[in-house]
This record gives sequence, structure tokens and C-alpha cells, in this order.
Amino acid sequence: MKLSPDWVVGFVDGEGCFHVSVQSHPEMTAGYQVLPEFVVVQHLRDVPILYALKKFFQGGVVRVNHDDRYCYRMRKLEQLEKLCEFFLKHPLKTKKNVDFRKFRKIILMMKEKKNLTKEGLKEIINLALQMNTTERPALEKIKRTLENG
Amino acid sequence: MKLSPDWVVGFVDGEGCFHVSVQSHPEMTAGYQVLPEFVVVQHLRDVPILYALKKFFQGGVVRVNHDDRYCYRMRKLEQLEKLCEFFLKHPLKTKKNVDFRKFRKIILMMKEKKNLTKEGLKEIINLALQMNTTERPALEKIKRTLENG
Repeated sequence: MKLSPDWVVGFVDGEGCFHVSVQSHPEMTAGYQVLPEFVVVQHLRDVPILYALKKFFQGGVVRVNHDDRYCYRMRKLEQLEKLCEFFLKHPLKTKKNVDFRKFRKIILMMKEKKNLTKEGLKEIINLALQMNTTERPALEKIKRTLENG
Repeated sequence: MKLSPDWVVGFVDGEGCFHVSVQSHPEMTAGYQVLPEFVVVQHLRDVPILYALKKFFQGGVVRVNHDDRYCYRMRKLEQLEKLCEFFLKHPLKTKKNVDFRKFRKIILMMKEKKNLTKEGLKEIINLALQMNTTERPALEKIKRTLENG
């Protein structure tokens, strides 16, 4: 299946998710690891679409998500950099573009290894907290820990 | 906001819904009214997208759906005919295309007024029952009524 850039933008406007989580990781300089990912979840019947996205973006993996749901997921920094270039050139039309711009900022900061400093990490967490619409108590907790530490 | 055909196809692959309901209507020849609709639901923040779709398809309305959700909805038969022409020319890439093809069949049957005969109505209900993935007890009930009547 061949996808066009505009179709991909429309589909990601509907189904894509830019997400950044932060996990405790004692071996990292700042004590935490930043994990950005781009995810598209579909029902089993539309797995071919996920493989078409993998081919389109030349990266990422297709995995079982839960039950009869599968996801296309990209986590590698170099691949995410290219993904960001694509969505900068072909902007999303929904408010998801606001999330994307924060996501891209985090990716650029990670490229410059700013996630390894406490100040950079705090900035990344603040950006991540402004993304998506769900509550993020775990991330809020890390933020408080960093502010008090 | 200007939308391209490919973006619209991608977005509808993700967010669009082709749906056909059937309601009791004593004044109709077969006793029931067939109500096809095309719907796209978005959060309040993306209402501009819904208006852009309305402009793109030159028809339909934007309405509150529930709570902070809004929908773009098209119900007029002549407008749905044009919508079907668009998605026939620019095919959906997900399995939603299977739903679309059944939807289109129903629209063509309605154009030929087959929904006004009992046989046509039964065929339409069978098609509608194969669409979407949710259970449709009310439609199943009408089907049994028509079969026994």
C-alpha cells in the first residue's frame, strides 16, 4: 500500500499520538530517562495501514498494543528527528500540531543532550505536561522531586 | 483552512463514520424510514476542521454532539450522493472502505427509491447490519419484524 504525504498528515491528525514519558533511571546523569514516542493504534483489521506507515517513515515497529489492538510505534531518536522534519514540512491541521511542536522541541533538546542536565530535564517535563490532554500525576511527581532536589 | 483530497481521505479513514439507521415511520410506504448519515466527531478545539470539511464537501452541518464534542454531519441524500462520488474517486485506505461501499450501495438504492418497498428495505437493513462494529439490537428487531410481517 502506497501512502501520500497528505493522506499521512490527515490520518495522523486523526489517529496519531506524540507522547513523552519520563522514567527513573539511576544510571542517567540527571537520574531520569526521557522517552519520546510517536504512536498510531489501530484495530487488528487495519494492521496493513500500520505496516504502510512503517514503510512510509522508514522506521518504527508494529506491535500488539492490547487485546485486538495493534500499534505502530517509533522511539529511536534519529528516526523521530526525521519524523519531525516531515511534520514540519507537512503541518498537521488539527490542534495536534500544538502537541507536535512541543514534541519537536523536546526531540531537538535531546539531540543536544539537554535531557542529561537537571535544568534541561525540568524544561522537557514542563513541555511534556503541556502535551496531550490526560492528567499525568507520575510526571507531576517527578517535576516536584526535581524542583525540591 | 484549505483541505486537500488526500488529507480528507486520511482524516476520514481515522475519524469518519458512515452510518445508517432505520426508524419506524407509519407514513412511509414500508412503515420505516432509512436515515443514512456521514459523521465526523471532534473535540471543541478542532471545530475549525469540521467547518473546513463542510466547505470541502459543500454540504452538511456542524452541531454540538455531546459535552465538549462537536460533529460534522451530512444527511441530505443529494449531498451524500456527491460524497459517495468523492470517496469512490479517492478510496479510503482502511477497512472503513468496506463500510463505505455498503453505505454507497444503500444511497444508490435510496436514489432508486428501493427503500420504499419491503424487499428493498430488508436488503438495506441487511447491509446496515454488516456496517460498523457495534451491536445493533434495534435494527435486528426491525429486521425480524419485517421477516415475520
